[in-house]
Parts: sequence; structure tokens; C-alpha cells
Amino acid sequence: MKLPRGYRYASAYAGIRQERKDDLSLIVSDRDASAAAMFTTNRVTAAPVKLGKKHLKASGGKVRAVLINAGNANCATRTGEKVARECSRRLAEMLDVPLTRVIPSSTGMIGVELDPRKITRKLPEMLEKLAPERLPDVADAIMTTDTVPKIAAAEVALKGGNVRIAGVTKGAGMIHPNMATTLAFVMTDAGIPPARLRELLVPAVESTYHRLSVDGDTSTNDTVLLLANGASGVELGARDRKPFQQTLQDVLEDLARKIARDGEGARKLVTIEVSGAAGGDEAARIARSIGNSPLVKTAVAGGDPNWGRILVAAGYAGVDFDPAKVDVYLQGVKVCDGGLAAAFSEKAIERKLAKSECEIRFVIRGRAKGRARFWTCDFTEGYVHINADYRT
Amino acid sequence: MKLPRGYRYASAYAGIRQERKDDLSLIVSDRDASAAAMFTTNRVTAAPVKLGKKHLKASGGKVRAVLINAGNANCATRTGEKVARECSRRLAEMLDVPLTRVIPSSTGMIGVELDPRKITRKLPEMLEKLAPERLPDVADAIMTTDTVPKIAAAEVALKGGNVRIAGVTKGAGMIHPNMATTLAFVMTDAGIPPARLRELLVPAVESTYHRLSVDGDTSTNDTVLLLANGASGVELGARDRKPFQQTLQDVLEDLARKIARDGEGARKLVTIEVSGAAGGDEAARIARSIGNSPLVKTAVAGGDPNWGRILVAAGYAGVDFDPAKVDVYLQGVKVCDGGLAAAFSEKAIERKLAKSECEIRFVIRGRAKGRARFWTCDFTEGYVHINADYRT
Repeated sequence: MKLPRGYRYASAYAGIRQERKDDLSLIVSDRDASAAAMFTTNRVTAAPVKLGKKHLKASGGKVRAVLINAGNANCATRTGEKVARECSRRLAEMLDVPLTRVIPSSTGMIGVELDPRKITRKLPEMLEKLAPERLPDVADAIMTTDTVPKIAAAEVALKGGNVRIAGVTKGAGMIHPNMATTLAFVMTDAGIPPARLRELLVPAVESTYHRLSVDGDTSTNDTVLLLANGASGVELGARDRKPFQQTLQDVLEDLARKIARDGEGARKLVTIEVSGAAGGDEAARIARSIGNSPLVKTAVAGGDPNWGRILVAAGYAGVDFDPAKVDVYLQGVKVCDGGLAAAFSEKAIERKLAKSECEIRFVIRGRAKGRARFWTCDFTEGYVHINADYRT
Repeated sequence: MKLPRGYRYASAYAGIRQERKDDLSLIVSDRDASAAAMFTTNRVTAAPVKLGKKHLKASGGKVRAVLINAGNANCATRTGEKVARECSRRLAEMLDVPLTRVIPSSTGMIGVELDPRKITRKLPEMLEKLAPERLPDVADAIMTTDTVPKIAAAEVALKGGNVRIAGVTKGAGMIHPNMATTLAFVMTDAGIPPARLRELLVPAVESTYHRLSVDGDTSTNDTVLLLANGASGVELGARDRKPFQQTLQDVLEDLARKIARDGEGARKLVTIEVSGAAGGDEAARIARSIGNSPLVKTAVAGGDPNWGRILVAAGYAGVDFDPAKVDVYLQGVKVCDGGLAAAFSEKAIERKLAKSECEIRFVIRGRAKGRARFWTCDFTEGYVHINADYRT
């Protein structure tokens, strides 16, 4: 995996979560990186999100370090903002950079006070460990109920030379269009000014992370942060925009799919494709409605070609369409033909539905061009097990 | 149970569902009854719903009989409308009433052709059986994944004498504000013209059935039908409106709570009370967001006083409020105080959470008066079991 130049990474176990597994991680850029970020839209916002926004504004979108802890969301606590500031301040001092160049980020339990000393006393060890190849350690240390670390990388040829993009993410539960308990940190060594970077990030998130749902809940800490430090020596030119945008989107899609596949208790990645809607927004609403339906998701878990539930979920998306013009395909097999049962072999489709990926295609006949994709996972007993006593 | 006068009921096993349990039921009013109904808002609508709407319109809101089958939703099929019309027509002939006085209603599988002969050949037997005391048989025969029949009744003193209200309902899965796979048939012997009846039904449904969610899905067949046949000899006067409205609402609330308690796999009835929102609509949106959150519902299943999830679910309701002004009570115990953890005994509250009813109170401090209640159930492995292979 060719990682973007000019970044170093480290992780450590700070004792924030009970399980003895690294829970603290650090991303450092060797030079000021341009930064663009999208945060949770929840009314309840964690302290690190508030501080991160403040820092990005104050620095004009420049970042040197990201300090992430798992096991405690640092949200809805008495000391939250002080803790986030104290940890960031100590790290900024050690790196000898302005405080506003540090972005704190947290994920985990809400409403539990976070002891800042657990974090600050580990900083010297983390700085010692910093190394360019340790990005996988970060992917590991940001996990909560995730079962696998999630990392993606790509290289793209621009006019001035090759640049690299790499990212890590975590998800599991509370994943929803507005990025619930999702953390994603994406680094590139292309040179891109902050304003331009934001123009690249927003549409890429819109078609990937915002088209993702595990359980419909959204969280207080969600963050997608994109850094561009220019360490490749290649500045993004006007003609580079399109290939870079596509590669960034590919990396984010790769990460988003990994989140859906690893939803709490999930056994299957579900991809929903809607076409023939009046517009892209209508298509996305239908896709989201199907992707959020517990009845569709339990049917997928059970390997049941229950197209009726798919049609019904689309029916309450709040989008006008004629059910008699709808075809539904499961794993490429037409199961609903013009709103009615298609002739298909139950046996054959049940075999296909046993696979670890499930594709639902919802086609509205006609000339309308609205399309959208959406990712989710199946809904199993495992989800309930995990969430009935995550806290205790 | 004092049942409204002038109605007779029957049920039979028509072989529509595999399990040998009555699946066909009939409600007959001895005279033309005024009728008001609320149907599903799903874009995909079952044939009996379409025909029922047509009949109500054509008859000016007069009904003599309701014919209900379980086991097949008669939706998304080639012959749906013909089947609904054929069954209604045969019943109308036998009762010697106009076709438009018959309302068909179905619940069950979608996309499976329904053989009308299964229903029509049972009609003579059903007519034989008709009896005023057989309302519980209807409650039984309309069940799908429900585990208990649901029936409620009340009597109210009006100026001209006592009138009675009684209703049966079914629910289980796909229960959501817009009445998914909910059927409710409510009869009164008060004399009320159709237009007035609708004015009584709409607000009563708004504060009961529309404040109910099991899994957030909505269905193609949802119907709440209210009949008023005047057999008590008591006409509803202007001063009777308020007590009648209250009693109707009590009956509907009783039925709605029974649905929530019997949600698929549910072990607990959850009541959510929100107060201090800017208005009633804002309060209802917060209550609904909490009531639909899988994370809140799994926490309730696990007896976990996870107020963070409640706060977070309120946070994505799309309603503006200050989290620092929120108190949350679980079973009457304050668990969140001004957006922060309250001091409470985990042991004591876990004991309280083991009960079969759970009360979540979400209070926004201040002078605003917006209040709402919402009912749901906990979310257990049982839901997944039931829905992973309901169809097959």
C-alpha cells in the first residue's frame, strides 16, 4: 500500500476502554496540511467536535495533528470542553505548533467523564512511536464495536506527477446518512488549498458516507476529515480536478462499504441501486427508505426474496411513483415485474441470497434519469445482542 | 364487556393462511352505519383499500358490513381489485344491501394471488354464525404475527342516554405513525352523521395510532374504520361531543398501547413523554425520534439506563433545543440532569427497568408548553427471528 508522503502515525493503549487494546491514536503531518471536514448534524454535539470546528476556523483550515481516542465520546460531560482543549494543548506544545493546528476526535460512550491525564501521559510515547507506515495501527485503535480495521488507499496520476490518497475509518452502529459515530481520516499528499479541498470533499461525502446506513441512528461525534499536505510536490491543477475527485470518491466509497459490511451483527453488505426516479434526490430518498427498513434488512438476513417489503419501503419514501411501473432485481434476478410477482426460481435465488453481498436493484420504468446508490447491511440477532448491553 | 348495540360478528377458517386458525371475519351492522376511515399513506396501496375508499365515497359514508381476511394482503397481485370486488359483491347480495355498503379489508403477505372462492364459499357459514357477542372472534381472526387478540370497549353517558364504543385491532410489525399493517375496526351505537364522525376520528387517531411505532415500517393495507349505527337511539348532541371524543380517544389509546406491547418480539411496552418543546408538533417529532431509535429500543430490551442514546436520538429529530436544558427520567428516576449524567443508583434503576412497562420522560426546561406522548416497544432478538423468515 503506497501511503501519502509526509504523514506519520502512532497508537497506544491509554486505558480509556477496559479491553486492553489500543484506544489512542495520532496522525501528524510533517508540514501544515490544508484541511476540510464534515461533522455531525446532531443537535447534541461532542466537545471535540465543537473544538475541532473552532480550530479549523481559527487556523483558516490548517492542521498539523489529529488526536483520536476510542472508548469515550467525551460528550454530555461536565468537563468535556476542558478535556479536549487540555489534550490538544499538550500535544501542540510537544509538537511546537499553534494549538489551533490540532484536531481532537473521540468515539465511544456518552455521558462518562474522560480523564485527560490518561491521554496526556501517553503523548511522549506516541510521539516516539510516530512512523509513516503505522497507518494500520490507527485503523485498529479507532475501532469500537467494529470487528475489522478499515483502511483504503489509491494513487492517481496528475499533470505534475502521482499523488496518493489513504484513509482510515470506523463505523459499526449508529451509521446513517449524516455520518453517525463514523470517524474517517483521509490524507493526501497533493497540494490543495483549503477552500478547494472542501469543494472536493462535500460531493464525495454526499455520494458515499451520506448514502450509508446501519441502523438509522446518528451520533454526536461524526467526523470526516480530509488533509492535503502537498508533500508530493504536486499541486492540484484545474485539469487534475476530475481524476482527483474520482479517486477521492473511490477511496471514500471503499471505506463506506467497509463500514456497511461491518455493521453491528451484520453478515451481508447490501447495495441498493435505484434508477428511473424523477431526480437524483428522489432516487436517493427511495434508496434510503429501502436501506433503512428493518423488514427489508431482516429479509436479507433470512435469505428471503421478499420483494413486497422492498416495494412497500419505497412506497413510504415520500416520493411519487407508479408501483405498476416498478421492477425489482435481487442478485440480478427479476423478482418483481411491473409491481407484481415475477416468475423466478425460489431455490435458485435463495442460493444467490446466501452470498455475503446482496444487490437490490429498484427500477422505475420510463425515461426519467434519477439514480442513486445506497449501502447498508442485513439486520441480525447479533445487532440486538451487541446493543442490548454495550454500555454495561 | 358491554358491546355497542346493533352489530353482529362472525369468523371462520377459509384456508387463506396455512395455520388452521380463523382467517376470515365479518362485521355487520343491522342498519346503515355512518362511517369514517383513515387509510395508509403508502404509495403502494392494496386493492381492498382502494375499493373501500371508492365505496365510502359512493355511499356517502354509509356501511353495512366489513369483510376482513388475514394471511394475504391482496396487494401487488394481478387480480387484486377483481378479488376484492367479487367478495364484496357476493356478500352484498347475500345481505341484500348495495355493493357500496361493504368494506373489504386484508392483511398478510404481499404479492401472492388471493383465491376469492376461498372467501365466498365461506360466506353462508359466516352469515349463519353472526352474533352480537362474537366480537372477540373477530379480534382473534384478524391477527397475523400478533400473539394476543386486542379488544377494547367503553361506555359513555351522553345527554340522551348511554352509548357504547368497542373496537378490535391488530398490529405486531410494520407499525408506524402512519398505521402500518394496522387494522382497527371501532363500532359505536351512537347516532352521528358521517361528516361529524370524521371530525371525531381524525384527532383521536392523531394522538393515538399516529403516535405508535414498532419498527418504523408502514404498510399497504392500514385502516382505522369507525362505524356509528345509532342503535342506542341516542344522537350525539353538541354538548356530547367532548365526552364522546374523550371516550373514543381512550378506546383508541387502549388499542394502540396493546399493539405496542405486542410488537414483534417485544417484551416491554415503552411510553415516551416529551414536554417543554416549542409546540406539540416539535414534541411529537422528538418523541418519535426516540421511539424509533433501534439503539434506544435495544437498550430498553437490555434494561440499560442509557440516557445518552435518548439524548442523541432527540438530537437528530430535526428540532431545535438546547441539550444543556434537558432532563431525562427513566421509570421516574432522573438519569440525565441538564444534559449531563444525574446521580442515580444503577442497581435500583436496573431493577425498575426489568418491569414490563418502561416510561421515558424527556423534559426540556423552560416555559414552552409543547407536549406529546408516543408508544413503542423494546427491540429484541425475537423481532429478527420473526422477520427473517415470515414469508417462507
